[in-house]
Amino acid sequence: MRIGTDRVHYVWDNSIEPVAELGPGERIELDLLNSSGGQLGPDSTVDQVAALDFGRVNPVTGPVRVAGAKPGDALSVRVVELTVDSWGWTACIPGFGLLAEDFPDASLAVSTVDDKKVVLPFGPWLDTVPMIGTLGVALPEPGATSLVPPSRFGGNLDIRHLTAGATVLLPVGVEGALLSVGDAHAAMGDGEICGTGVETSARAVLEVDVIAGGAPPAPILRTAPASARTGAALATTGVAPDLMAATKAAARAMIDEITRRAGLSAVQAYLLASTAGDLKISEVVDQPNWVVSLHLPETLLG
Amino acid sequence: MRIGTDRVHYVWDNSIEPVAELGPGERIELDLLNSSGGQLGPDSTVDQVAALDFGRVNPVTGPVRVAGAKPGDALSVRVVELTVDSWGWTACIPGFGLLAEDFPDASLAVSTVDDKKVVLPFGPWLDTVPMIGTLGVALPEPGATSLVPPSRFGGNLDIRHLTAGATVLLPVGVEGALLSVGDAHAAMGDGEICGTGVETSARAVLEVDVIAGGAPPAPILRTAPASARTGAALATTGVAPDLMAATKAAARAMIDEITRRAGLSAVQAYLLASTAGDLKISEVVDQPNWVVSLHLPETLLG
Repeated sequence: MRIGTDRVHYVWDNSIEPVAELGPGERIELDLLNSSGGQLGPDSTVDQVAALDFGRVNPVTGPVRVAGAKPGDALSVRVVELTVDSWGWTACIPGFGLLAEDFPDASLAVSTVDDKKVVLPFGPWLDTVPMIGTLGVALPEPGATSLVPPSRFGGNLDIRHLTAGATVLLPVGVEGALLSVGDAHAAMGDGEICGTGVETSARAVLEVDVIAGGAPPAPILRTAPASARTGAALATTGVAPDLMAATKAAARAMIDEITRRAGLSAVQAYLLASTAGDLKISEVVDQPNWVVSLHLPETLLG
Repeated sequence: MRIGTDRVHYVWDNSIEPVAELGPGERIELDLLNSSGGQLGPDSTVDQVAALDFGRVNPVTGPVRVAGAKPGDALSVRVVELTVDSWGWTACIPGFGLLAEDFPDASLAVSTVDDKKVVLPFGPWLDTVPMIGTLGVALPEPGATSLVPPSRFGGNLDIRHLTAGATVLLPVGVEGALLSVGDAHAAMGDGEICGTGVETSARAVLEVDVIAGGAPPAPILRTAPASARTGAALATTGVAPDLMAATKAAARAMIDEITRRAGLSAVQAYLLASTAGDLKISEVVDQPNWVVSLHLPETLLG
């Protein structure tokens, strides 16, 4: 089953009609619009950045209903394939980004992208590491809310480790989960400090599963074993408007995972995470919620 | 020249007499006490953790005077060699650590350490990655201050990338810089969430240099090219009692480095750091100052 970019939505709202239904273990192919929602193209100029309509940014494709998923369960989403477009954009958008006060003016860099390299227009090239910026399920609360901030139900997590081969577990908020996905990047650094990575359109093949009663407090990733930039790791997350609160939440979630999976006591898990777990600021720009993740090599989980 | 662990001090104080003087390009060998200051040994029990005298923790060896270094200059310190002891300790210390409120009771884990492995007493083993937790220069202000918090002059930075092969640049605070070093770890995760890594004694060979007028706003690292866990990177830091402030400082320092080294404009540097720089929480436990670092592959600096 393939869902095209005519089936995007621009807010989280659990009343949006599903575009497809999957059973546990089934796959779906989704076309993802780049995060400008079609407002920027390879020939765009900086004027178009300043004029971006924020009501049309960060579109997500979906929602996809998953049969049997209900609140209290975890939805598991594995990224089976992820291919990105041959170009991508990176921008400084006025009022947005970690250093918005330092950079009041719009700026735009359109890169070329192939399987191996992202070539920025001002010189350097980066490894192409396609990732999904936004992957989430409908919130339990009724009504429309912005797609910009992530939440404990996922969404605009902007975790660069959500690549092909990675799996993410999300708490289910409503019957059927209602999964939506968008905001692919051809490359991004932890933190996404200017507010954008190399924003690109993409085709994603996803496989879903349901873990009854397995809802985590916030998203948990299992990173791709063969990633060039990281080994296989379990990554817990904290999603909060304060970096310290997000850090503590990620640490607490990791301690829970270690105690459950490796059979250690809570304090042993705390010591293990201190000696072998790495805290990363995954995003610090998707106002008002930041994502901190704590990555532990999977080999330590027994 | 070799300086033993009889030449340690327990506070930062720019009136402490130098134990040695080096010229630019010269090397020194320092013995480093583990961060308990000799209060814990391989047979210690948890009772000794609860009874730790904080007036004797985190000793540093030094200070070493560097001829010609003066305020406004950068002191460059390259870690030429770093060998650690055959055991190390990791503890939950009441009142200390990211989750101090969750873990009120002391706990202690004594690990065995060899060239390849750190074996924790409750099962898992980690790669041995010796690093220096505390490396700093005397503060310009007179009087004694605690060794626990890091500052823009370095100190207890607890950046796990300060391994053999890495170089750190520090702003010089006083004539002669007055470099002191301690707090080695056989392994540590980014963040050091419980407040300790695998704390161990060590022998360090350091090479110093002075970069006239090159004082950075806060420490800057060049990581070891051949590290197993990271490639060679430039890492800027922010040191502050607030993670967001530290994050912004690290980002601003990176933009300055990129513009200077790669000849890009400030906004181009901002976009590059967003697509290829990784924000790490290096330590979030050395009250009241946290360290956030932003790592960019060195290949992108031209």
